[in-house]
Amino acid sequence: MSEQPKILVTNDDGIYSPGIKALFLAMKEIGEVYVVAPDSEKSAVGHAITLSDPLRVHKVERNNAFFGWAVNGTPADCVKLGVKAILEFTPDLIVSGINLGSNTATNVIYSGTVSAATEGAIMGIPSIAFSLTSFTTRDFSGAAAVAKTLAKKVLEHGLPEGTLLSANIPPLPPEKLAGIKITRQGRGRYEESFEKRVDPTNRTYYWLGGTKLILDTDDDVDEVAISKNYVSVTPLKFDLTNRPFISKLKEWNISLDK
Amino acid sequence: MSEQPKILVTNDDGIYSPGIKALFLAMKEIGEVYVVAPDSEKSAVGHAITLSDPLRVHKVERNNAFFGWAVNGTPADCVKLGVKAILEFTPDLIVSGINLGSNTATNVIYSGTVSAATEGAIMGIPSIAFSLTSFTTRDFSGAAAVAKTLAKKVLEHGLPEGTLLSANIPPLPPEKLAGIKITRQGRGRYEESFEKRVDPTNRTYYWLGGTKLILDTDDDVDEVAISKNYVSVTPLKFDLTNRPFISKLKEWNISLDK
Repeated sequence: MSEQPKILVTNDDGIYSPGIKALFLAMKEIGEVYVVAPDSEKSAVGHAITLSDPLRVHKVERNNAFFGWAVNGTPADCVKLGVKAILEFTPDLIVSGINLGSNTATNVIYSGTVSAATEGAIMGIPSIAFSLTSFTTRDFSGAAAVAKTLAKKVLEHGLPEGTLLSANIPPLPPEKLAGIKITRQGRGRYEESFEKRVDPTNRTYYWLGGTKLILDTDDDVDEVAISKNYVSVTPLKFDLTNRPFISKLKEWNISLDK
Repeated sequence: MSEQPKILVTNDDGIYSPGIKALFLAMKEIGEVYVVAPDSEKSAVGHAITLSDPLRVHKVERNNAFFGWAVNGTPADCVKLGVKAILEFTPDLIVSGINLGSNTATNVIYSGTVSAATEGAIMGIPSIAFSLTSFTTRDFSGAAAVAKTLAKKVLEHGLPEGTLLSANIPPLPPEKLAGIKITRQGRGRYEESFEKRVDPTNRTYYWLGGTKLILDTDDDVDEVAISKNYVSVTPLKFDLTNRPFISKLKEWNISLDK
C-alpha cells in the first residue's frame, strides 16, 4: 500500500471510554485514524439503528487535541453516519472497541461492539470488533498489540463478502497471552433471573440478572480458548440462515388452508 | 397434546399495535395465549436488552378486557421477563409480530420482531417471527392464517436447537397468497444516505434515509419469493460463525510480536 490505510474507529462504550483511546493509539501506528463514536455508553444495544430521532454530531477533544466525532446514536449509527456523512471517503478498515467485557457465545447478538463491525461488513468494508474479556482488569496492552497485528493482517488479506472478525482478548500484557486461536461462537448463555424490588413510591420494578451457563468444552470454542489465556478470533457473518435445516423444513409440507 | 398449548405473544410495534391483536386472535384459535409486549414502539432496536434501567410491568386492557402485560423494555426484554418473571411456566411456543414491514435480507439483523423469537430460541423454546411485507396495506388476514398454520406445524414438529423461524407475509387475504416457500436470507441491503438539516436554533442534524438495493434473483431468496406473492419462511440461527472461512483464516498464521 503506497499511502497509509484510512481506519475508522468506533465503539459502544462511548467516545470518552479508555478502550477507544487504546484502540485509537494502536491504529495510529499503522494508519490514518478517524474516530466516530457514541456520545455515551451504548452497551447491549444489539444491532439497533436510529430511525425516528435526528442524529447530531459534535467534535470531541481528548488531552487538548481533536479526538473525533461524537454521535447521539448507536454504534451502527456511528458507522453509517461516519462513512456516509462525516468522512468524505470509504475507509480501508473499520475497527470497533476495545470493549470492556467479552463478546462471546450467545452474547455476540447483544453486542453493540460487534454490531458496529457488522455494519461495516454490510457496507463491504473489512471490519473487526475487539473486546477485553474483563470488566474490571483494564490492561489494554495485550489487546492493543492484537489489534495492531490483526488490523495489518486484514488490510493485507481482506475478508470474504459478508464476513467480519471478532477478537476477544484476555486482559494481559502481550507476553502473557498464550497465543491466537481461530474459534467458533460457543453456545454458552445466561440463565436469566429477575430481582423484584419495590421503589419508594411503592411501585414494583425488576432488575435483569442471571448466571452464566458454560455449555462448551471444545478447544475451538471462543470461551474455552479465552479460559486458557488465548486470544479468540472468530469469523462472523450476518446471513443467519440455518441452511442445513432447509431441506428438513421443506419436508413439513406446510400448506395454507384456504 | 392433551392440554391446550401455552403460547406467549410479543412484538416490537408495541402492545397497542394492530398486528399483535391479529396475532393474539389467531393464536387464541389453537391455544392459551399470554401477551407480554413493549409499552411503546421499539422498531429497529436490534437485539437490545435493558441492563442499566429497571423494568416495569403494567396490565393492559383492549376492548374492555385484559389483554396482556406491557413492559418498558425491548422485545428481547419482554421474552426474558415474560418467561422468567411474569408467567409461572415455560410456554410451548413464542410468537412475535405481526410486524408492519418486512424483516428480510440484511434487515433481519435490525429487527426487534426477530430478536424476540431469537431470545425464545436461546431459551430453548420454539419461536416464530411474523412480519407483514407492507407498512401501508394492513390486511392481516393472510398473515393470521399463516401464523395459525405455522404455529401448529412448529408445535407438532418442534425446531432444532438454536433455530427459529421468520415468516414474511404479503398483505393479502389467504386465497390471494401464491403459497408458502422455504427461503434463505437474501443479501439485499439499504444504500444509506443522510439528509442534513438545520433546526430552528441553527444546529445541524441528520435523518437516516436510503434506497433499497435488490441484490438477489434466486427463487429461494426471501425477497424474491415475496415479490411473487409467496409467503417466505426462513429458518434462522444465532450462531453467527462463518465456519467455511475458519480453515482459510487459520492459514493466515496470525502470531503476536511479543
